[in-house]
Amino acid sequence: MTAPASNPLLSDRDVDFQLYEVLDAESLCKLPAFADHSRETFTLFLDSTRRFARDVLAPTYRLMDAEPPTFRDGRVHVHPLMRTLYPQLVELGLLAATRPVETGGQQLPLTVYSLASAYLMAANLSAYAFIGLTTGAAHLIEAFGSEWLKDTFMAKMYAGQWTGTMALTEPHAGSSLADVRTRATPAEDGTYRVSGSKIFISGGDHDFGENVVHLTLGRIDGAPAGVRGLSLFAIPARRPEGGRLVDNDVRVAGAIHKIGWKGIPSLALNYGEGGDCRGWLVGQAGKGLNHMFQMMNEARIMVGFNAVSTASVAYHEALAYARNRPQGRLSWEKDAARPQRPIIEHADVRRMLLRQKAIVEGGLSLLSMASWQADVAEHGATPEARERAGLLSDLLTPLAKTFPAEKGFEANALSIQVHGGYGYSTEYLPEAWLRDQKLNSIHEGTTGIQGLDLLGRKVVAAGGGGLRAFVEEVEATVERARRAGVDPSWGEALNEALQRVVGLTMELGQAGMAGDVERMLRHSADYMELFSVLAVAWRWLAQAAAAREGLARGAAGQDFYEGKIAAAQYWIHTELPRVAQLVELCRSGEDSYTRMQPDWF
Amino acid sequence: MTAPASNPLLSDRDVDFQLYEVLDAESLCKLPAFADHSRETFTLFLDSTRRFARDVLAPTYRLMDAEPPTFRDGRVHVHPLMRTLYPQLVELGLLAATRPVETGGQQLPLTVYSLASAYLMAANLSAYAFIGLTTGAAHLIEAFGSEWLKDTFMAKMYAGQWTGTMALTEPHAGSSLADVRTRATPAEDGTYRVSGSKIFISGGDHDFGENVVHLTLGRIDGAPAGVRGLSLFAIPARRPEGGRLVDNDVRVAGAIHKIGWKGIPSLALNYGEGGDCRGWLVGQAGKGLNHMFQMMNEARIMVGFNAVSTASVAYHEALAYARNRPQGRLSWEKDAARPQRPIIEHADVRRMLLRQKAIVEGGLSLLSMASWQADVAEHGATPEARERAGLLSDLLTPLAKTFPAEKGFEANALSIQVHGGYGYSTEYLPEAWLRDQKLNSIHEGTTGIQGLDLLGRKVVAAGGGGLRAFVEEVEATVERARRAGVDPSWGEALNEALQRVVGLTMELGQAGMAGDVERMLRHSADYMELFSVLAVAWRWLAQAAAAREGLARGAAGQDFYEGKIAAAQYWIHTELPRVAQLVELCRSGEDSYTRMQPDWF
Repeated sequence: MTAPASNPLLSDRDVDFQLYEVLDAESLCKLPAFADHSRETFTLFLDSTRRFARDVLAPTYRLMDAEPPTFRDGRVHVHPLMRTLYPQLVELGLLAATRPVETGGQQLPLTVYSLASAYLMAANLSAYAFIGLTTGAAHLIEAFGSEWLKDTFMAKMYAGQWTGTMALTEPHAGSSLADVRTRATPAEDGTYRVSGSKIFISGGDHDFGENVVHLTLGRIDGAPAGVRGLSLFAIPARRPEGGRLVDNDVRVAGAIHKIGWKGIPSLALNYGEGGDCRGWLVGQAGKGLNHMFQMMNEARIMVGFNAVSTASVAYHEALAYARNRPQGRLSWEKDAARPQRPIIEHADVRRMLLRQKAIVEGGLSLLSMASWQADVAEHGATPEARERAGLLSDLLTPLAKTFPAEKGFEANALSIQVHGGYGYSTEYLPEAWLRDQKLNSIHEGTTGIQGLDLLGRKVVAAGGGGLRAFVEEVEATVERARRAGVDPSWGEALNEALQRVVGLTMELGQAGMAGDVERMLRHSADYMELFSVLAVAWRWLAQAAAAREGLARGAAGQDFYEGKIAAAQYWIHTELPRVAQLVELCRSGEDSYTRMQPDWF
Repeated sequence: MTAPASNPLLSDRDVDFQLYEVLDAESLCKLPAFADHSRETFTLFLDSTRRFARDVLAPTYRLMDAEPPTFRDGRVHVHPLMRTLYPQLVELGLLAATRPVETGGQQLPLTVYSLASAYLMAANLSAYAFIGLTTGAAHLIEAFGSEWLKDTFMAKMYAGQWTGTMALTEPHAGSSLADVRTRATPAEDGTYRVSGSKIFISGGDHDFGENVVHLTLGRIDGAPAGVRGLSLFAIPARRPEGGRLVDNDVRVAGAIHKIGWKGIPSLALNYGEGGDCRGWLVGQAGKGLNHMFQMMNEARIMVGFNAVSTASVAYHEALAYARNRPQGRLSWEKDAARPQRPIIEHADVRRMLLRQKAIVEGGLSLLSMASWQADVAEHGATPEARERAGLLSDLLTPLAKTFPAEKGFEANALSIQVHGGYGYSTEYLPEAWLRDQKLNSIHEGTTGIQGLDLLGRKVVAAGGGGLRAFVEEVEATVERARRAGVDPSWGEALNEALQRVVGLTMELGQAGMAGDVERMLRHSADYMELFSVLAVAWRWLAQAAAAREGLARGAAGQDFYEGKIAAAQYWIHTELPRVAQLVELCRSGEDSYTRMQPDWF
């Protein structure tokens, strides 16, 4: 047995469906920011990206997974393929795709850009990560940096000459940014002398470009403890001086041996071991975390896309395998002389595939919606529209980051299971994608942190304004589904679950306002779980509605629409009922793990 | 950060608790078969095994994981450490520990043997696997082989000179044993000339012992198609001839590059490429699968122990890490100047640890019970006792195999999550245990096959006799918990869930008897899930009862008992309610994945 020869990475039909049937992506072009765009320009961008992902990038994945970067003589050497891949990725116009024309960008909607980049992630997650990180770092300079920083750093990053990183985590503090210790001492030239250590810096060094700029959280001498004392700095590996680049005293202290994402190094960095590391303040002193967090939705939505893409490529691999692999007969077929059946005909294999489909396409739909709200939040027609979309984007982001990371991991494990013993081997790729996937519940805020963010901040923000907007969106979808002729019991079930979640949220929010923060947040993990199930059920109802509309129009691809309706049925009948049970759990105040003492384990 | 220096693998206190407080292992010594044993002999065996596992075996794990076997010039070379480890494992008396004295064994109860071997599995799964496989293969010869086979093959296997394998799977058939094609042609000397190919043969070759005996399913010329045509053969790599061992024409065709269990090779074997491979029939012609299946409970219980041990070692690693790693403060502590807290104090970390504990110790308790029933099935005082225990053992085996494999995988993933970014690296061990764990849902019957076995056979066997015995056992535990002073609502909740499951089983069984096998088995995966949750809730109620009894006696270790009660509360309050929801799902006849057509994906 060999792996199926070609894997679509994502279904083109599904991506188009999400854009033009579930959402109405063309309507974005009515916004002034996107006025130069049309379905044609979207398609051009999507097609060139898809083609590159399939023809060029996907075949490099296994090679880069097998030969991770090496760390020798203080420098990191990545897979030599990156030397040709990176310029090609740059050539596709990815780095500044969503940025304004004046920064060299195309001002594409994030919604379109993200769906296109999902193909690149599915093809080779870590090769694309160099792009994603560079865009994120350059975007911070664009938003908050001085004109000099824009001209000197940002322009080279968007142009693909320099790459960028996000340098937040420190060895002793992990997720606890309040404890960041990296020091920045003001110098007379207006820059800062920086000293400190960072860890898990993805893309922190490589040998295919001329420079790396680390967007770094640090603390200016005398700044207060905690997150309020943090400032943001641009710290290049080599600084411009006298018309050339000179060493800026950023040292690679070591490389983490990651279990996945093997194409991109994860490094420990030391700043200023020689006392000569210069950092440039980006934005206002003491506003470092604020500035970072203004980019956080985009960064976390990107992680969600990392996750859903990794689940998607594995799902398509399992699907092709199940269609081609004959094995066994159905339970009621006793005649061993008849030929074996393709395993897709076994109910349990089909269940595993349908579950993968429900997670992948439900996650993709959730992420498309989160990107859409981010687009409207930035470029909406009115201040009210932007504010409402901002609240929705804030609310959806932790869900859109966490659901694909957590359930995507389950989907990736199912892809191995469908492959049976072969899936347990490195001769097949599902195991590699499973390794890649595990990071997504850890980086850019762990699942635990997303749960606290959702319940502790997002659903109670602006007096519950985000939650109210969410309720309106769900109700509009229920109405759309009703009109489209979707089984009305599905919308009723969704609405009932929604009301339960709203009731629970008010109850927990009141506990918090009454000062019982522990009680409010105790079940944040369960809350994240139930809200994810609900949000994905909403996206599946929207997809069922769009599918019914397609069938009613007599649009091509009846099979595709039937599959959408079956997957919606699956999610609504098998997953949605968990919401009521989890709401009860949260309401009950179940205290086993808060009662549990460290010595009792 | 380095990994905690010592990992207990399993908690001794918990193993003793399962044996002597939850169960009454000393009472087994009243059975004639175990009359020579006592708590002292059990302790001797457990202690020597524990010590070896911790002091000798565990330190070899990382080395063997990093240097998997190589396949050169037709031979497999395993890690050189195996040359010293295997004789030491043999020296511990493991190979025939449960076998009668006349075969060189100690006739230990499986319950005691399994709990002891769990330490070895937790220490180094694949090193132990050579033992487990050899025992299984020798046991087949002991049970069904001729005296000559016992003297010639079995004796050397139990003595540790030769090793053994189980050779069932073929490349074109995977789980579908009905399609096994390996051919056996009767020869005049009473043996068979064998030709065919097997795949995924664990331990199929190595370089630390003088011979390997493959217990092989094949088809005698003229035998019918399907499983009824299968016979069992002992096929040594080298056959005794004229007082020495000569090549028996068994060739290693290739090695699978597994993602875990890296200490033991998984091989493709070809029999009889040169026309000179001799097999010895074991038992009756045409009864091969029957014979295999008489050993199946033991083999599957062993896989359950593989799984729970792999989850256990990772849980203990996460626990030590969480106690020692300071990071962040509690949600309501705003003062960044105070020291960071060990992460075990964060509610969500504690939840992840408690979930791991609930899975590990709940799984261990289920496996102890399954082993206990297997002991009584073989050695019970009366035919009635043996028959009842046999039915229970049959019923519990698919659960005891599947629950630790599936939920153990989740527990292993949580161990990575507790370790954060460090958990995503090979500098720490949780990722290795996650890789090991994934096999357990695949080998010895996939999770899908276990679900079909449970619902299609075990709960309806003997007119529902196994299910009735299960109900009696659960009711006895509810009564024990009531007397011990466990919160009575827990027993009531368990009983209610039990009644729902019994009702569902009758409904599905009737559908099957009415000829609608598809309807009966459609939700076998959900049925497996709900029955697992129920069975583990039963084991947690039993543990809560034993803990309350311990507290009432004033036994030492109050913290330990409090932890047991909190974990029981966790399972009963957070997991048990899922039974009702899943029962409804199965009853509803939800048909999304049977309706789903291959072309709709």
